[in-house]
Amino acid sequence: MPDVQPRLLKGFRDYLPEVQLPKERMLSRIVAVFESFGFAPLQTPALEYADILSGKCGEEGDKLLYRFEDHGGRGVALRYDLTVPLARVLGQYGNLDTPFKRYQIGPVWRAEKPARGRFREFVQCDADIAGTKSLLADVEVLQVACRCFERLGIEGFRVRLSNRKVLSGLLVKIGVGEGPAGMGVIRTIDKMDKIDEDGIRKILRDENGLESSAVDDVFAFTGLGGDSAADTLNELDAYFGDIEVGRAGVAELREVTGYFEPAGIASRVSLDLSLARGMDYYTGTIAEGVLTDLPGFGSVLGGGRYDELVGLFRGQSIPAVGISVGVDRLLAGLQELELVDSVSTPTEVYVTLFDGDSIAEAMRLSSELRAEGLRVEMAPEPVKLGKQLRFADRKGIPLVLVAGPDEREQGKVAVKDLRHGSQETVALSGLAAELRRRLDAPVESEAASR
Amino acid sequence: MPDVQPRLLKGFRDYLPEVQLPKERMLSRIVAVFESFGFAPLQTPALEYADILSGKCGEEGDKLLYRFEDHGGRGVALRYDLTVPLARVLGQYGNLDTPFKRYQIGPVWRAEKPARGRFREFVQCDADIAGTKSLLADVEVLQVACRCFERLGIEGFRVRLSNRKVLSGLLVKIGVGEGPAGMGVIRTIDKMDKIDEDGIRKILRDENGLESSAVDDVFAFTGLGGDSAADTLNELDAYFGDIEVGRAGVAELREVTGYFEPAGIASRVSLDLSLARGMDYYTGTIAEGVLTDLPGFGSVLGGGRYDELVGLFRGQSIPAVGISVGVDRLLAGLQELELVDSVSTPTEVYVTLFDGDSIAEAMRLSSELRAEGLRVEMAPEPVKLGKQLRFADRKGIPLVLVAGPDEREQGKVAVKDLRHGSQETVALSGLAAELRRRLDAPVESEAASR
Repeated sequence: MPDVQPRLLKGFRDYLPEVQLPKERMLSRIVAVFESFGFAPLQTPALEYADILSGKCGEEGDKLLYRFEDHGGRGVALRYDLTVPLARVLGQYGNLDTPFKRYQIGPVWRAEKPARGRFREFVQCDADIAGTKSLLADVEVLQVACRCFERLGIEGFRVRLSNRKVLSGLLVKIGVGEGPAGMGVIRTIDKMDKIDEDGIRKILRDENGLESSAVDDVFAFTGLGGDSAADTLNELDAYFGDIEVGRAGVAELREVTGYFEPAGIASRVSLDLSLARGMDYYTGTIAEGVLTDLPGFGSVLGGGRYDELVGLFRGQSIPAVGISVGVDRLLAGLQELELVDSVSTPTEVYVTLFDGDSIAEAMRLSSELRAEGLRVEMAPEPVKLGKQLRFADRKGIPLVLVAGPDEREQGKVAVKDLRHGSQETVALSGLAAELRRRLDAPVESEAASR
Repeated sequence: MPDVQPRLLKGFRDYLPEVQLPKERMLSRIVAVFESFGFAPLQTPALEYADILSGKCGEEGDKLLYRFEDHGGRGVALRYDLTVPLARVLGQYGNLDTPFKRYQIGPVWRAEKPARGRFREFVQCDADIAGTKSLLADVEVLQVACRCFERLGIEGFRVRLSNRKVLSGLLVKIGVGEGPAGMGVIRTIDKMDKIDEDGIRKILRDENGLESSAVDDVFAFTGLGGDSAADTLNELDAYFGDIEVGRAGVAELREVTGYFEPAGIASRVSLDLSLARGMDYYTGTIAEGVLTDLPGFGSVLGGGRYDELVGLFRGQSIPAVGISVGVDRLLAGLQELELVDSVSTPTEVYVTLFDGDSIAEAMRLSSELRAEGLRVEMAPEPVKLGKQLRFADRKGIPLVLVAGPDEREQGKVAVKDLRHGSQETVALSGLAAELRRRLDAPVESEAASR
């Protein structure tokens, strides 16, 4: 018996191949989208000086930091997100050209109470543009969001758009200051897609301390909306009257939505005044992506402009706008939509071993097929053929090659398609192309035996 | 001024885009090789229970663990390598099919004294086959090593091969037991490529406590070698006489080298009896990859068979063989060999903004080119053209598009190639193909202006 029981820490998990493989495929596509816009990869350490990380995500964030003393007695912590490390990098290297467009994918750690779908270590996947106030950068981030969905084969998606300045205007209108009180109202608005109107009214009244007229004002605000974004923005302007910050938000939204058509996102991004986003660092554009075929599933990506956060280590503010893809939520969504294959191996072709004499030939064949770009696994031992076939089947490998003495003599190989249970003898010359053709052909589900 | 000085912990580093971009490209190619053999990705948490990680890598390893207590008072630690987590996974999930072929890429942490090229957080990149004693798995790992080099465009490489049982035979021959004394001798042999014969003799005598006749025996052993692997193995058999463990090692090497030709690695892998590898967990095959165009650079990948380590959490041994690519060393080697481009952005085409009126058109053009598979960055603001061009040049972006009123009217765009300093006016129709052609064409260095 083992001395130590193999087990995981609470709130942590393993990603076995059947989960990690589709996750890697998904991340590759997202990276391809990021790079198609010129975002470049950055990696920063998981461990940072604790004083770099603390005090950046509020008191609550500080409590969730994994902090400890290292061997040299330094106070260190595991990063809480990828945004504070970006801020540190921008502060530390004075010579970085701006706009600095970087993406970073990596784990972050938060000692939260574990819950369904909430883990203490999870992967963040961020793309940000730092160093420009141009709203074209905001438009670009919205484009990146749409292209990510499309690249993943998702047809039913929508990106909700609003602006924090508009919400600040609402706070002025209802007489609530910025800071904790204002953020309380904003967080309540953020729950409008999960809680019904009566519930929201109750929270605004009882927890956020609003008068009923102010509560009505909130619903008048979120209910605004004409036939077009332009109409809605005109209504908003009228609603704000001379509230400057609100009108500034409307102006930003007008500029951003004005580029929807040339940006190719007009049918995908829509103004939504009930969008608020929970984090307090946003200063302008806010956005959130949802899967319209999974109502109630919640957002799978989000982002916005945060002009004050990234300058923390520079003594001057650095404007920034970005997007964060909720990798694990998005993967869960793709799985619910049946847009990912559930396989536990990348192998496309399994080369069986008929007997000890066939090993060298099988090795040569496997190498040739790999050189043609196929993913090929060779059986490790010439055990009973049935056992080899069952292994390939359990792994979900589509094609299996069997070459007995007869086939070898004829320069042929038997190709078994485990998806249909079919078998055919194929000549070795041109085998790779023939296997590729079979792998690329759609699988007829009626004929499927598994 | 900032409250907190932006800085990194000693022994840690940032990978800015100009380093991370070639690193990601390199890792993608390595992953493609791993997957072409059917290895599937696995991810495990960075944090584990301390008792899972401790006691697995010797006393020295334990000292280097980053250990601390989490919020629940549990003793936790950051992983030291990716092998112990693999062992834990194999012990924890009883239903994993074997051979279990997994790769894992991720950071590991060791509180070592930082030195040139040695960091406290670094990326490991491992591929292992667990659950089979078949030496075909050992051959496959050698194939994977060779294919990785080839896929990275490296022509000058060699994989050195030996076997720990053969070294155990040597220890029997010279009367040194297994355990620390034997590992001492093995570690000294491992230094033969760095220290000259006199130096090695001195260490064997003074530090490992060998008699001079035993020292002579060591050099008789490492000096063995005929015209072919088969000759060398026959000599080794004679050298061992009736020392069983040594002869068992020779038999393994005979089987493994017997498959070199069909495995397509005969010209790349060679027996090298001075190869020893420093880790004590190897039980059979050992191998190491070197760049022959960089003599003295040391190994860039290594691996072997370790049949006792992975069963730790299972109460029974699980045979395993694997390879670990030294990602950062390999990248440094590629850079010295000038096999990686030094660019700080993935962008291939920079779309400038001539004026405010040209933004919508530039946005449309950028989107079209991205849809054709090009990586396109659009300027964020219509600042002076010279400034936009200098930005693209500093970033190392090869092509820049400029569309003034004249070009726009004619349905054309000016294409500047910043690598040659050339410029040409090109029709918008067919532009993507034309840009791709230019990007794929070799750059003539005489004409290069930068």
